[in-house]
Order: sequence, then C-alpha cells, then structure tokens
Amino acid sequence: MKEISKLMGYRSDVRVIDATLRDGGLVNDFYFKDEFVKALYETNIKAGVDYMEFGYKASKEMFDESKFGKWKFCKDDDIRAVVGDNDTDLKIAVMADVGRCDYKTDIISRSDSPIDLIRVATYLNTIPAAVKMIEDAKNKGYEVSCNIMAISNAQESDLKFALDTLGQSCVDVLYIVDSFGALYPEQIARIADTYMEFAAKYGKKIGMHAHNNQQLAFANTIEAVGDGVDWLDATYAGMGRGAGNCAMELLLGLLRNPKYNIYPAIRFVEKYMNKLREEGIVWGYDLQYLMTGLLNQHPRTAIQFTKEKRSDYSEFYKEIVAQD
Amino acid sequence: MKEISKLMGYRSDVRVIDATLRDGGLVNDFYFKDEFVKALYETNIKAGVDYMEFGYKASKEMFDESKFGKWKFCKDDDIRAVVGDNDTDLKIAVMADVGRCDYKTDIISRSDSPIDLIRVATYLNTIPAAVKMIEDAKNKGYEVSCNIMAISNAQESDLKFALDTLGQSCVDVLYIVDSFGALYPEQIARIADTYMEFAAKYGKKIGMHAHNNQQLAFANTIEAVGDGVDWLDATYAGMGRGAGNCAMELLLGLLRNPKYNIYPAIRFVEKYMNKLREEGIVWGYDLQYLMTGLLNQHPRTAIQFTKEKRSDYSEFYKEIVAQD
Repeated sequence: MKEISKLMGYRSDVRVIDATLRDGGLVNDFYFKDEFVKALYETNIKAGVDYMEFGYKASKEMFDESKFGKWKFCKDDDIRAVVGDNDTDLKIAVMADVGRCDYKTDIISRSDSPIDLIRVATYLNTIPAAVKMIEDAKNKGYEVSCNIMAISNAQESDLKFALDTLGQSCVDVLYIVDSFGALYPEQIARIADTYMEFAAKYGKKIGMHAHNNQQLAFANTIEAVGDGVDWLDATYAGMGRGAGNCAMELLLGLLRNPKYNIYPAIRFVEKYMNKLREEGIVWGYDLQYLMTGLLNQHPRTAIQFTKEKRSDYSEFYKEIVAQD
Repeated sequence: MKEISKLMGYRSDVRVIDATLRDGGLVNDFYFKDEFVKALYETNIKAGVDYMEFGYKASKEMFDESKFGKWKFCKDDDIRAVVGDNDTDLKIAVMADVGRCDYKTDIISRSDSPIDLIRVATYLNTIPAAVKMIEDAKNKGYEVSCNIMAISNAQESDLKFALDTLGQSCVDVLYIVDSFGALYPEQIARIADTYMEFAAKYGKKIGMHAHNNQQLAFANTIEAVGDGVDWLDATYAGMGRGAGNCAMELLLGLLRNPKYNIYPAIRFVEKYMNKLREEGIVWGYDLQYLMTGLLNQHPRTAIQFTKEKRSDYSEFYKEIVAQD
C-alpha cells in the first residue's frame, strides 16, 4: 500500500506544476490567445497551483519566430505582460531543451526576470550538456529541475549513471518522464525507487511527468506520489502532445492539501479548454496513442495519423509493429 | 510492488469478460444491431476473450419489451441466433439483477441453454435474495458470479458480513464493483485484500468491474490483477454507463498470456465502436463524471447532464456538492 496514500491526509512537500502552455503548446504550436494565458494564470493562482510553466526558451536561431506562438520562446517581457511583478504564491517556470536553446544569452539573471524555475529537458545521451545548463541557471539564481526524457526505453544502468551525475550537480529536482506513455504503475514504482535512491543520497526532490497513451497518466502520477515523488506535472483537460498528460482537474481532486481547489480548474476547462477543442485542436487518448505507448515508441507516427484524420487503426497497427 | 505484475509473465487463472453489450447497453437501451452483436461475438473469439456477457435477464413484467433492445432480456433463443451451439472456447454470460428479474422461470436449465455463467448483481441490502438466486442458478448447472454493487459507499463491516455470507454460498466468483468510479488504486488494494481473505477461506475467485469516472478504470483493473483478482471485466472502447469501463483494447494490451490478441479488438473498435459514436451514442470520461466519482455519488445526475447536452460543469458541480 502506498503512502500519500493515506488518502485522507497529505504531504506538504507536494508541488503541482501546470504544464498546459508548454506541453499543450506542442499541440497548437503555442498559439494561445492572450486572454487564455491570462485566465490560465489567474486560474492557477485560485486553484493553489504551485508553478505555471509558460513554455519553452527555444533558440530563435534554430526556430523561426514567425512559425510559432510566443510561448515557444517565452521572452521575459511576454511573461511580464501577463504576470506583472507576479506578487502571488504562484511561481513561474519555463523549459529549456538541451541543444535547442541559447541559454547563455536568453536566460538572464533571476533578479531581473519574472521566471523562478528553469526546467532543463534532456535525453540520456546529453547529460553533460544538461549539467552545464543546470549550473548556468543555478548561477543565475534560479531553481532548477531536470527532465530526463524517454526513460521507458533506456538501459537501467545508463539511467543510474545519469542520476548519479545529475545528483552531483546543483539541480533541485529530478523528473521521471514517461514521454511515450509506455509505463505501467508497477514500472513507475520501480523507477521511482531508483530515483529515490539517488534523491536521498544527494538531497534532491523527484518529479513526475506522465503521458496518457494508455489512460494511465493520472494513475501513474498517483503511483508516483505514493512512492515519495513530490513534484507533479498536470495540464488542464490533460492538454499535451499526442494523448496528453495527467489532467489538472483529476490531480486537484486527489490532493488533500487544503491549499488546492478544484473549482477554478473546472471553470477553466468549461470556459477555455472545451473551446479549444471546438476550434479543432485535437489531443487526448485514442487508439493510435495506445498503440505507440504499448509498443514503447515515440508518438510521432500517431500524431501524424491524427493530423491526417485517419481512422484505420488496424492498418496503423500493422505499420508500427513492423517499424524496426 | 504488485504481482501479476511481473509484467513479463502471466497468471493462467486470469479471465477476461467482455461486458460491452451489458454495460454498454445501459447507454443505448440495448439497441445493438444484429451485425454488431455477431461481429462482437466473433471478435471475442479471435481476441481470446473468455466470457461474453450478452446483457440482462430483466423481468418482462417490470420492463416493457417494446422500450428496449432485446439484450435487456437475453432470451435464450436470441443468444442462440448469434452463437448457434457455440462450439468455441468463448463462454456466454448474462446478468440478473436481484429484484428485477424472474429468474425462476426465465433462467432454464443450463443443459438446455446457450448460457454458461449467471452473473447475479446485488446491493449490500439484498444479499439474502442474491443467495437465493445464486443457489437457483447453481442448481440449474450454471457457473455463478455475484457482483456486489456500489461498495465505495458501503460500511466495511457490512461488506465483510456480505462476503462471509456469500462465501458460504455456492457462488464461484465474487466481484468488486466500483459502480461510481470513486475508488483510487490504493483503495482497490485494500478492498481486494478484504475480498481475498474471504476468497481464501471459502475457495472463491475474485473479479473486478471498474468505471472510468476518474480515468482509473484500467489502472484499478491493473491494481486488482496485481492483488490476485482473476476475473477482469472490460468493454470495447470502454463503452458503458456514464464514464464507461476499462477498455478491452487496453486490457488485452496489458495481459501477457499468448491466448489474448489485441489486433481483433483494434479492428472491432475501428469498424464498430467509432460508428456508434458517430451515430450520437455518448459515453466516456468527461468532467461531470469526474465530479460524481470524486464525490462518490451515483452517476445518474451526470448522465442527465450529458443527455441534456449541458456543458456548464461549474454549475453542475455546485448542484451536486449541495446534494445532501
């Protein structure tokens, strides 16, 4: 039996991170209306969410600014236009991908920025570069987390090496990321044990970022928090790449800390998220995502299937089973 | 860490029960086309499903036959028109509700019937009547299971009394039924422990029937099978009352017994289940079901909300929170 669990109580170290603009931005190329972003910010404050991730600090050298909404780049001024001096309990986060951002120039000193947390995203093969970015952000005064992506197809010994390396860095939080939505709760339990070992050794916190390919994003987040994972990512209506993420409204319903409120989340989904769907933005569980999750594959083929409005699931299954 | 779990292996005692016609029938008043039912039967055979539940044996005195499709009544002749002599490994099940069926006359001797399994459904307050029905079915030669519904708002001591009483009966399988979709995996673990105690004492099997109000139907089924629960209900595309059930295609993707095949399930969803949705049949996770699940309430208010095509979730929340 799990521990947070004691479903009647709560662990005050738990943090909720709203990743709607960032992971959801992967669905609509970050074209969110200003009104949407402002309302999301205000909703997060009312709901007691701890961090709001605005998007990516993507390289303007690598990516054409005219082809994406502004939250792919998260300029400090754009954030400030929403949050002002952010005189609230809600902290501001952005994600910076290893190899796809100009962090030395684009991330300025925290004292001059509205941002509180830099979330470094890395694959297992770029850990040393991630460490450089972590150090840079820490030296500039930020809280820093590190997402190790796509661990469901990693060698466990490689993962342990990465955790040991990152453990020795100044990172604050190490994230379990089920990029492919491939993991079952039992596997989350095992992986969380591994992370906890290094977290205990080096005094780090652990986070969970789940995908909903097998309708397990919420369940895996519950499993993680029961295993001692404190930082929990969620998005409103589960909006995120492909099958999406753990839904904020589900997570807030679970957590018993009285600082969290589900009602503002319900209102936001009602007013804003369903409108996105009506406008034709598509995300969430469907069989193509189940299949890539089951086969532990990147969802890009399933996203393409969705974009092409295909519904021949069985043909798709044959295509991806043969994809060696 | 859970046991079936050993996700690479399997437990040969596990049984998969397709409840699409029965729980799904609650969505469309059992109006399934003959072609659909025939294709479902053939799909179940190909997918290696163990039991197919055709619907209810509802009382024709209590319910007007002209107002429901035939699978609310599951006449033996109607089943036989689909399965013939059913010379397959797929067994046939029907559900009979305590107080809403004429089991003495409508359930004939198994030797004259295409049915193999009678699933008696009861609330906690009708256990003695359930025992009578169980004995009747057993005496007529059937396998018999018993669904104890709505246990999420039961007193634990009442549940134990019921399990002890049913344990002493000739029932074969005792079902955990999360009628309201209110339970978290941690609670399933505790409840399964309680069921297992009586199952061990009296030599019974345990089953799991989940609802998807909080996107946990599959996760709770995984939890249950890891706790030693052998009989697992699922429906194609999760079709079932309100938020629906554990999706067959997810469950077959989990189970490692080589007798199960996901491909026929994918084909069936592609060809038949999506067509139902296009025809306007509505089921599955949505915020109104999350809310009744979270509040541990019967989904009838949420079903009504759905039927009225309302989308004012926040008003609904206020209505049901106040519903004391």
